[in-house]
Amino acid sequence: MIRLLPMADDPAPERADAARNREAILAAALRLVHTRGVGCVTMETVAAEAGVGKATVFRRFETREGLMAAVLNESESLWQASVMSGPPPLGPGAPPMDRLLAFGHSRLRTNLTHADLIAAAGRPGARSAAAVSFTNMHVRHLLGELGVSGDLLMLATALLAPLEMVVLDQQVTREHLPLERIQAGWDDLVHRVVGA
Amino acid sequence: MIRLLPMADDPAPERADAARNREAILAAALRLVHTRGVGCVTMETVAAEAGVGKATVFRRFETREGLMAAVLNESESLWQASVMSGPPPLGPGAPPMDRLLAFGHSRLRTNLTHADLIAAAGRPGARSAAAVSFTNMHVRHLLGELGVSGDLLMLATALLAPLEMVVLDQQVTREHLPLERIQAGWDDLVHRVVGA
Repeated sequence: MIRLLPMADDPAPERADAARNREAILAAALRLVHTRGVGCVTMETVAAEAGVGKATVFRRFETREGLMAAVLNESESLWQASVMSGPPPLGPGAPPMDRLLAFGHSRLRTNLTHADLIAAAGRPGARSAAAVSFTNMHVRHLLGELGVSGDLLMLATALLAPLEMVVLDQQVTREHLPLERIQAGWDDLVHRVVGA
Repeated sequence: MIRLLPMADDPAPERADAARNREAILAAALRLVHTRGVGCVTMETVAAEAGVGKATVFRRFETREGLMAAVLNESESLWQASVMSGPPPLGPGAPPMDRLLAFGHSRLRTNLTHADLIAAAGRPGARSAAAVSFTNMHVRHLLGELGVSGDLLMLATALLAPLEMVVLDQQVTREHLPLERIQAGWDDLVHRVVGA
């Protein structure tokens, strides 16, 4: 088998300490996003929280946009892991209706945080097909467990659509609706869709 | 009362024939958008359809993006007028459930066309707060006429969310779902929400 020569711009493999630094920086950034909000997260605050020099943060992620894009991916992966194998009711082990409601509440908050991260990453409108597919499959699975009949792909899409960032942004940023009302509205929708 | 001097860059008032040209060009562009699709509409085809010179189209709208932005506004205005005062079942005079279903089917098609127009106007993600408010008020009004109780603002938002361009784009462009299935899914959602 012919081995291809490495391309000139192939990144060198990360050394173990570089990988550790990267992980520590991402974890610190994620903590700051959750506790202070995306707007308060700077390269400086992340470096201080991670216990590394500011230059290290710039060397690993180049720009604040680059860091925010990496935090977005990390956050979505962690959220998917908590749905698949985290504690109930979001994770397995709770009755399907409890899981569905927990899923909606969690996705609502995650999407609001991710909307800020996407804006901070300089990628307005970015929307991962893999994330869409994961959430739809999960909701279809729970609707099936609840014994809902009909076109489950369409019903899952209908339940997920009000949690879309563009819809939430309209409600939260422009109409200043409280999260509790949005969440109660979603619960009502779920009961109407499942109960029919 | 002190009259302000006109600002230097105030546009001169359109002469009657210029206004007629503008209307004829917009109407021609709208016909072409509906018959051939946004992708096939060029400054040349619009000029030919409107019976004016290509230079006139450029003088009125400067660029294809400018023309598409004007067509988008015109199309949304005409659609709102047909909801408020057009023939039933989209317009007044039909039972509220017939009007609601006609509204959804019509908005589905309009939003798909408008997604193309927004892209052609070079304004990805553009979303008019006035259009959101109009559609939400209309759906709330019909839900009220249908005797639905609950948080009608949230329920209207839930019915409109699956018609959002970002959701339709995922279903039509990426998943290649037929419009009939999307429409049937929306009808099912309406019946579940209203029937509860």
